[in-house]
Amino acid sequence: MTAPLALVCGSGVLPLEAASEIRARGREIFLVGLIGSAGREIEAYPHLWVRLGEVGKLLAALRARGVSDILFLGAVTRPDLGDLLPDWGAIVRAGEIAKLIRGGDDALLRGVAQLFESEGFRIVGPRDVAPGLFAPKGEIVGPFPDEEARTDIAFGARLLEAMSPYDIGQGAVITAERALAIEAAEGTDNMLARVAELRAGGRLRLKGRAGVFVKAAKRGQDVRLDLPAVGPATIAAAKKAQLVGLAIAAGEVLIADRPAFLKAAEQAGLFVYGWTP
Amino acid sequence: MTAPLALVCGSGVLPLEAASEIRARGREIFLVGLIGSAGREIEAYPHLWVRLGEVGKLLAALRARGVSDILFLGAVTRPDLGDLLPDWGAIVRAGEIAKLIRGGDDALLRGVAQLFESEGFRIVGPRDVAPGLFAPKGEIVGPFPDEEARTDIAFGARLLEAMSPYDIGQGAVITAERALAIEAAEGTDNMLARVAELRAGGRLRLKGRAGVFVKAAKRGQDVRLDLPAVGPATIAAAKKAQLVGLAIAAGEVLIADRPAFLKAAEQAGLFVYGWTP
Repeated sequence: MTAPLALVCGSGVLPLEAASEIRARGREIFLVGLIGSAGREIEAYPHLWVRLGEVGKLLAALRARGVSDILFLGAVTRPDLGDLLPDWGAIVRAGEIAKLIRGGDDALLRGVAQLFESEGFRIVGPRDVAPGLFAPKGEIVGPFPDEEARTDIAFGARLLEAMSPYDIGQGAVITAERALAIEAAEGTDNMLARVAELRAGGRLRLKGRAGVFVKAAKRGQDVRLDLPAVGPATIAAAKKAQLVGLAIAAGEVLIADRPAFLKAAEQAGLFVYGWTP
Repeated sequence: MTAPLALVCGSGVLPLEAASEIRARGREIFLVGLIGSAGREIEAYPHLWVRLGEVGKLLAALRARGVSDILFLGAVTRPDLGDLLPDWGAIVRAGEIAKLIRGGDDALLRGVAQLFESEGFRIVGPRDVAPGLFAPKGEIVGPFPDEEARTDIAFGARLLEAMSPYDIGQGAVITAERALAIEAAEGTDNMLARVAELRAGGRLRLKGRAGVFVKAAKRGQDVRLDLPAVGPATIAAAKKAQLVGLAIAAGEVLIADRPAFLKAAEQAGLFVYGWTP
């Protein structure tokens, strides 16, 4: 019997979908729910609840179960030092943890990974253990993007690539080779809502459906951590923004709640295309 | 006596400030007010009102006055083909004009410039005729940015440079070498309002004042047209976003209503620094 894989769960359905896929592939799993982020559904599996900052408790539980591999998945609000309720395990690592709070999201996540690696654990990515969660290549929901849309997808891909060294650049809305909106700290749904507002307010004058949402992982991103994700809410926001479709990087972007996502895209008449990064 | 300079006026005070500076420098001026954009104050000068699309009327008026140089200044809402009330002059140039409506803002403006150049006019920039409108180098409103702010200014400058080929990238808010927001079609004030909202909603957890608004012209931008501008509203928005200051590219960014701008920055405790692009 191999040691269980520990899955540290933030919010959303992705951690549970990963748990299901991992178990289906025959691997034992142990879920660690972050209080305030993870859902109660994790309790269907062997699990432990921890607060952010309970580093000592978490390390002890992982060691007691013989865990060596850890997967992090789901959204966690960027912590503030003042929010943490550090236990002794966190306090003895306080210097390292304080460093994590500064810098971009990439720096934060790389720091978390390094902290666990320095304790002897191995960080795995969803690609290693649950590849079924990723966007496939090519047409995911039709119609196949037309030439104009393909031009905009290529434009968006180049733009995201250019912004990639700056620890941003996971999403943009492009129409007629023009960036209507670029995602930074606000997140995808807020960015798409902005496009909807700019259109409703008359600041963006576009006739009918226009614009492709282009999404990718950052080039320098640690693919074990913080991969971009889309889900049914992305479709709802893209529909409100009156886009023509979504172009997500195949093998890089996670699809949360895939059945609902596919159905929503079909109903909204939005294409979903997996472009090859 | 030299021929008058024609100043095609969009909205805001910049066209009037330019008119005042140009006249103070001893040049005759003829203002062309775009109906729906320019303010009534243009009537203090020799002037003509035109609608977007009244290309024939405008060309005839410019020729009747012996104009050879044209300056465009002030904001104009990106037109929709359906909004234009084209006159015969526009209709005979319809093919060129339709092309202008597509593509990025740069493409639109370059097209407008080319249209007038093909009619024998010379497009001048504010730098040629009203250099006093631009941000100077160095400290504009103190205090001098500290080391952290200077690091963020340099980071923002590199980021804007990287985005420059994509016809975007005139503004970003940076803190601790992290881009909180990037400006695209929404404009500076909307972007700064977003930072204020993300902070108020708890999505951005920053203690006290944080963040520098970094602004520049795009590298490939035609400096005769569509230069970025800041004004008192920028200060109000930056104050709401709880930033530490503004860093504007010296010689590239126009300052509208300078006395009110400087006073507002001082009262808000925001530094304004002219960085060298």
